[in-house]
Amino acid sequence: MTRTRRATVGVDFGTESARAVLVDVSDGTELATAVHSYAAGVIDRRLPGHDIELAPDWALQDPDDYVEALGLTVRGVLSSSGISPEQVIGVGIDFTACTMLPVTSDGTPLCRLPEFRDNPHSWVKLWKHHAAQPEADLINSIAETREEPWLDRYGRRTSSEWFFAKALQILDESPEVYAAADRLIEAADWIVWQLTGIESRNSCTAGYKALWSRRHGFPDPAFFAALAPGFADVVAEKMSLEITSPGQRAGVINAAAADLTGLRPGTSVAVANVDAHVSVPAATVVSPGSMVAVMGTSTCHLTLADTEQVVPGFCGVVEDGVVPGLYGYEAGQAAVGDMFAWFTRLLDADGRGESDTHNSLERQARLLKPGESGLVALDWWNGNRSILVDADLTGLILGTTLATTPGDIYRALLESTVFGTRVIIEALNGAGIDVHDLVVCGGLPYQNHLLMQLTADITGRPVRVAASRQTPALGSAMFAAVAAGPALGGHESIVEAARHMASLSSDEYLPDLSTRPVYEDLYSIYRELHDTMSESTSGMRRLRTVQDRARQTTVSVP
Amino acid sequence: MTRTRRATVGVDFGTESARAVLVDVSDGTELATAVHSYAAGVIDRRLPGHDIELAPDWALQDPDDYVEALGLTVRGVLSSSGISPEQVIGVGIDFTACTMLPVTSDGTPLCRLPEFRDNPHSWVKLWKHHAAQPEADLINSIAETREEPWLDRYGRRTSSEWFFAKALQILDESPEVYAAADRLIEAADWIVWQLTGIESRNSCTAGYKALWSRRHGFPDPAFFAALAPGFADVVAEKMSLEITSPGQRAGVINAAAADLTGLRPGTSVAVANVDAHVSVPAATVVSPGSMVAVMGTSTCHLTLADTEQVVPGFCGVVEDGVVPGLYGYEAGQAAVGDMFAWFTRLLDADGRGESDTHNSLERQARLLKPGESGLVALDWWNGNRSILVDADLTGLILGTTLATTPGDIYRALLESTVFGTRVIIEALNGAGIDVHDLVVCGGLPYQNHLLMQLTADITGRPVRVAASRQTPALGSAMFAAVAAGPALGGHESIVEAARHMASLSSDEYLPDLSTRPVYEDLYSIYRELHDTMSESTSGMRRLRTVQDRARQTTVSVP
Repeated sequence: MTRTRRATVGVDFGTESARAVLVDVSDGTELATAVHSYAAGVIDRRLPGHDIELAPDWALQDPDDYVEALGLTVRGVLSSSGISPEQVIGVGIDFTACTMLPVTSDGTPLCRLPEFRDNPHSWVKLWKHHAAQPEADLINSIAETREEPWLDRYGRRTSSEWFFAKALQILDESPEVYAAADRLIEAADWIVWQLTGIESRNSCTAGYKALWSRRHGFPDPAFFAALAPGFADVVAEKMSLEITSPGQRAGVINAAAADLTGLRPGTSVAVANVDAHVSVPAATVVSPGSMVAVMGTSTCHLTLADTEQVVPGFCGVVEDGVVPGLYGYEAGQAAVGDMFAWFTRLLDADGRGESDTHNSLERQARLLKPGESGLVALDWWNGNRSILVDADLTGLILGTTLATTPGDIYRALLESTVFGTRVIIEALNGAGIDVHDLVVCGGLPYQNHLLMQLTADITGRPVRVAASRQTPALGSAMFAAVAAGPALGGHESIVEAARHMASLSSDEYLPDLSTRPVYEDLYSIYRELHDTMSESTSGMRRLRTVQDRARQTTVSVP
Repeated sequence: MTRTRRATVGVDFGTESARAVLVDVSDGTELATAVHSYAAGVIDRRLPGHDIELAPDWALQDPDDYVEALGLTVRGVLSSSGISPEQVIGVGIDFTACTMLPVTSDGTPLCRLPEFRDNPHSWVKLWKHHAAQPEADLINSIAETREEPWLDRYGRRTSSEWFFAKALQILDESPEVYAAADRLIEAADWIVWQLTGIESRNSCTAGYKALWSRRHGFPDPAFFAALAPGFADVVAEKMSLEITSPGQRAGVINAAAADLTGLRPGTSVAVANVDAHVSVPAATVVSPGSMVAVMGTSTCHLTLADTEQVVPGFCGVVEDGVVPGLYGYEAGQAAVGDMFAWFTRLLDADGRGESDTHNSLERQARLLKPGESGLVALDWWNGNRSILVDADLTGLILGTTLATTPGDIYRALLESTVFGTRVIIEALNGAGIDVHDLVVCGGLPYQNHLLMQLTADITGRPVRVAASRQTPALGSAMFAAVAAGPALGGHESIVEAARHMASLSSDEYLPDLSTRPVYEDLYSIYRELHDTMSESTSGMRRLRTVQDRARQTTVSVP
């Protein structure tokens, strides 16, 4: 008698593409994967089909790209795996966040409507849309003045990437789009709406990106009123008040979604989640002590703990935000792989081969002894997320000489990102939360072995590597198995799902103790630059002001 | 009746090659030029024909390369100009400095002797040999302790590039070479010795590089004794005590030199001089008010004044050092063109075309508005000569982001060198010495128009350009005309020679006042970095210590 295979589908909506994976519920075997790149990708220069130029710091997307990618990738894994829709007991999705859009009461994106299509504010604001910094500054200053009780949970600073900064930018700059929006919604929740026909809002994005907590709900309307007169009722008017937790069932596939995806109507659909957060159990971590680093273009750090502490500069502490029953602490570095790619592009201006350049750089960098480059960098090429929460900070390279080689610079850039990680670990330690080891996932750990060894050496902690190269999609498939539940052949909890479906690879990086003294010295230099350059009157900050003014003025060019 | 053309030859010994120019004494017309690259070039990896590796910071040359270049270039200008040796009334030379070598009593370089040929200390130490920093540190600290009276003339710090640091390094590391050397001599004076058969020592290198002054002579033997027991009599034992001034006649061409060069025996030979200093009258400057900047791989700044003032961080103030009767103030920037070339090489790792890369960078940089790059750099890629006099300082780039382009960085590097020039001008102003305008010469002004405009904008002063593209060789030819004197058809003084033989080009760069506010802001950021990073406990300095230690230790490489 052969056991019938039971499978779930996880769909991970990333920055450039969506990826579906079909997973065996019993042992986590990844039976098939399909990836589809969004047609319009990241929209940061002009709206598709229009001449309308976007300001720097804007980053939009087209929601129809998500729908197309959803249909194609789910159909793709079904067909290439040979698994029948009857064997699929559930589907789960995860998304970048805060990635949000204005929609009508039936879920229609405003950018689909002809009257709004040429208004950039009607499109999806991607997580890395940074143009709402003035609104974030206002939110921070009003919250400080009012001594808002939720401030401590977010390290006392909120980011321009988050939900209410983006929502307020719409109100400020396009009141007509704001007025026409029946809902402002996370793309994650919008996709679940497309699958089930039912609007819902997940606790993970609500907690990490929209200032919500299970115990205290959203901030008070008086706070929102203090930001702008018409903003007082943003929660009541623009958001669904029902908040559901990861692992719960949001609903089932409806007829339209069945047509789109090839899944059976009635298939269980899990509550949506954030890509990084869903990676934690997929990297085997369901208890305190290990930090999960999701390392790609940027890095997200997630750590579980039994208690709620204030950690300055952390992006959020959310109860049940990652694993039910525990507090999930989120921190981040805004540019990691992006920074290495920047340097590779810089050296490969003629576009002959970035991957050749990258391999040659890693080879050169590997041959250097710690400290030999003579360089220290500040890794703020895209601002600093944790622990300074400031998108306006910029990078720095110190120590260049005529003998400085591309390999020297490349190694200093790698090291700088690890120094940044160490600052984050020390902030956790300072709040009484231990980090014994790191478990890494995302794209970088498999491409950049030197970076992994440096992570072990500079943090002084073992670095283990998740077995799956697609932890977000696997994590979504795991939550899909939990939402489906044991009755349908799924799992009782995410802890159970992790035990069966997640594993570590055999790669493990142990700290080389001989490098310790040099990295202590280099880290002390990094830390001093970190602290002085982030001061409000630093040269770095004044420089940014000069640049902003220069961009706005016209000066004769020599 | 046709006037017989009278000509002089100037030979400029640079870092990579020697250049002779044959000049019409009446109007400065450059009748012929010849250039010859030294066969061994700059020796900074291993001794020619030996496996002996040189430490970083070493830079040697082969004196036989100078002799070969002298013969070939002088013969070259004679033959290509059609001027007969009888029409040549004099020859003058200039040299990089301090570029020095140990020789026997008859002038034979020790490196020519088989017993010393494999000893690096027997070779010429080129100006940019930086391995005598420990000796320079000792000289500075002992001089401070002893309150040496000459310290003020040198901005209270001497450089590792100068004569006594290099001499002391020979004594410290190779006492046998030191003992065998009857003379330690500037290459400039050694070439004059080869031409005339008579040893002499010029006041310019003695003043700027060997702590000598017309009024006070060399430092006291007690000072040298305090540096090292065997060093007390370095002046008496290793140096000629007769010091002669630029414009004087050192002697005449002897038979051997006539064979070598094709010049007539008996032709007047001028006292040797330093390349940058001889450029001042060749750039038309023979009175106070204008700063001459000789801009090439490095930049040398020379300003004339009527009085002797203390200017902190200046490389020297020498009476008669540039123009008789005036004090010559010398400052310098250790890497200018070298720094731009470093960046061009960095981007052109595959060696496809540095000049293409350079042109494309200048095009990109020219299109930027002041401040638009968002970057400020510290131009210390080869240490800081003025006003900090410290070869151990390193470079810095502040403000990088994912949007930073090669053109942004290139422009920031150009600007940083001009900020460095502005620091030098402000130091002069602070000592009561005015700089109304700059006159530039050297290779860069003709290649890098953007740099010239930036120099005008950032210093707020007009920038004029010397007509001659080979001011050192022209200046040597001018001093040759003075040494020959009016009786032979030459000139009475260098002021007269400048009036007849030197001129400005029609290129002139005026400050664009609209750029002033932005550059004031950027300069204040530069100046703050300049002051904090040069502090004794700065991250920059600690980083250098880490690097030095790393180079000395063996650590397992990940």
